[in-house]
Amino acid sequence: MRNFDENNITTAVIDRLAECTSPRARQISESLVRHLHDFVRDVEPTQEEWGEAIGFLTGVGKMCSDTRQEFILLSDALGVSMLVDAINHRLAKHATETTVLGPFYVENPPEYALGDLIDTRPGPALFCEGKVTDVDGKPLAGAIVDTWHSDAEGFYDVQAEAGLKSLTGRARLRTDAEGRFWFRSIVPKFYPIPHDGPVGKMLEAQGRHPYRPAHVHFMISAPGYEKLITHVFLDGDPYLDSDVVFGVKDSLVKPLVAQQPGTTPAGHAVDAGTSLLHYDFALAREAISS
Amino acid sequence: MRNFDENNITTAVIDRLAECTSPRARQISESLVRHLHDFVRDVEPTQEEWGEAIGFLTGVGKMCSDTRQEFILLSDALGVSMLVDAINHRLAKHATETTVLGPFYVENPPEYALGDLIDTRPGPALFCEGKVTDVDGKPLAGAIVDTWHSDAEGFYDVQAEAGLKSLTGRARLRTDAEGRFWFRSIVPKFYPIPHDGPVGKMLEAQGRHPYRPAHVHFMISAPGYEKLITHVFLDGDPYLDSDVVFGVKDSLVKPLVAQQPGTTPAGHAVDAGTSLLHYDFALAREAISS
Ligand SMILES: [Fe+2]
Ligand SMILES: [Fe+2]
Repeated sequence: MRNFDENNITTAVIDRLAECTSPRARQISESLVRHLHDFVRDVEPTQEEWGEAIGFLTGVGKMCSDTRQEFILLSDALGVSMLVDAINHRLAKHATETTVLGPFYVENPPEYALGDLIDTRPGPALFCEGKVTDVDGKPLAGAIVDTWHSDAEGFYDVQAEAGLKSLTGRARLRTDAEGRFWFRSIVPKFYPIPHDGPVGKMLEAQGRHPYRPAHVHFMISAPGYEKLITHVFLDGDPYLDSDVVFGVKDSLVKPLVAQQPGTTPAGHAVDAGTSLLHYDFALAREAISS
Repeated sequence: MRNFDENNITTAVIDRLAECTSPRARQISESLVRHLHDFVRDVEPTQEEWGEAIGFLTGVGKMCSDTRQEFILLSDALGVSMLVDAINHRLAKHATETTVLGPFYVENPPEYALGDLIDTRPGPALFCEGKVTDVDGKPLAGAIVDTWHSDAEGFYDVQAEAGLKSLTGRARLRTDAEGRFWFRSIVPKFYPIPHDGPVGKMLEAQGRHPYRPAHVHFMISAPGYEKLITHVFLDGDPYLDSDVVFGVKDSLVKPLVAQQPGTTPAGHAVDAGTSLLHYDFALAREAISS
């Protein structure tokens, strides 16, 4: 149990887990050591490069605060968040596809009534409506619909200089008896993930831009169903095919429809000049723990 | 360039590196993504587990300060530091083996003359001597020998409550015309790596102790030779076969010899009751960059 070289050290570290009492901790540790060592053997970092890696990770940790989670950004930018999302959502047929939560969700967003204007910032008018059903199309009444989005400049309310001063462009709604929801807001714009930290530097070094295509976030829950975390992306956005966090799925892209004065497909009255976004969500039944 | 699932997302992320202008950055990024995604596919973390991983890494970053480098401890405890060390020291035959630098080296340690007492702390007397040569045994005169070690309680000077108040148990010496060095100090003890942070919690979860066997650090340099970073371990230590950072090599383990009053193998006079540690170091020629 000495004399480790670049080949036998991996087994040596794994053998050291013999007294780990949690099978899951042991499995994760073993896999981590195996893949991390394989990575190091593959790239053969110099001592200086490994020092840079340590410095990078330290910088990512130092950037984290109450309002900034740089390690989540790193996970997002390396495609890991979407990979974890995919692994955890091998979905029932016809269920709405999922995508990342992102860093801008706020727990218990302000409650609004159906039809309310949920954004006080300037920007082109948006009318958003849809239905929440199960995978067979049965409407889910009283489902909780949380929604949030950026403004016409690509900023979330919580990114305002003064911080979390006033929440806007986010809401909690509840579907009506037919499973429908609708609200008024402004059209969101594409935006960069926060890129003034180590992850921004990494993207630059990798020759990548930091942008996400315009989207509206949804988190929808109803008793007995899997909580759905997803976005609806706006068709035509220049970054749909290069989302920095790899979150776009065709089934989640919808056109904004320039609305004539009159009524929406769901029968709501809207003004001329309003853009209409319509999306129907299908929730999968909650998995029964075995 | 949409619709990524748990299998094709890895290629998608790697394809995004197309405009990376540094071949090395591209190689490292690609390998990182490949191995990181393989790890995630292997363990299939739940969203909660991935959140815990993010929280762990954030905690490691937050623990880092001017006097504490928790990411190096993490790298050490996962065997990565020794792996990087091994990759960077595929040594010439007969060269002294290397091991990790560790977190307690101080740049430009205090200079001492040969034979000086370098430690003012209480503890059993140590006399350390040896020779620095090339791999063919030719003595290297004027080689710089930096040495540092813990005290009889297992603490380094820089770990004292008040911080870096007074350096002791560390020195810079220069070999004489025959390549010899010698100094007086105290016998160091085994010690735990700092384990009051996230890495300590990880070791606990893995069922591992945080100890390193007793050792004296050496960093030896001479013009035209590879800088040698290594330890000499004290034979008989209870942790020689379970060093938390996997740094022990048989060729680096030496017995402490209880010295009779008289002279050491190298001919130095020492008192009875002193323990003698003798180690001869062989430095490899500096690699010529090709
Ligand atoms: Fe977003
Ligand atoms: Fe040490």
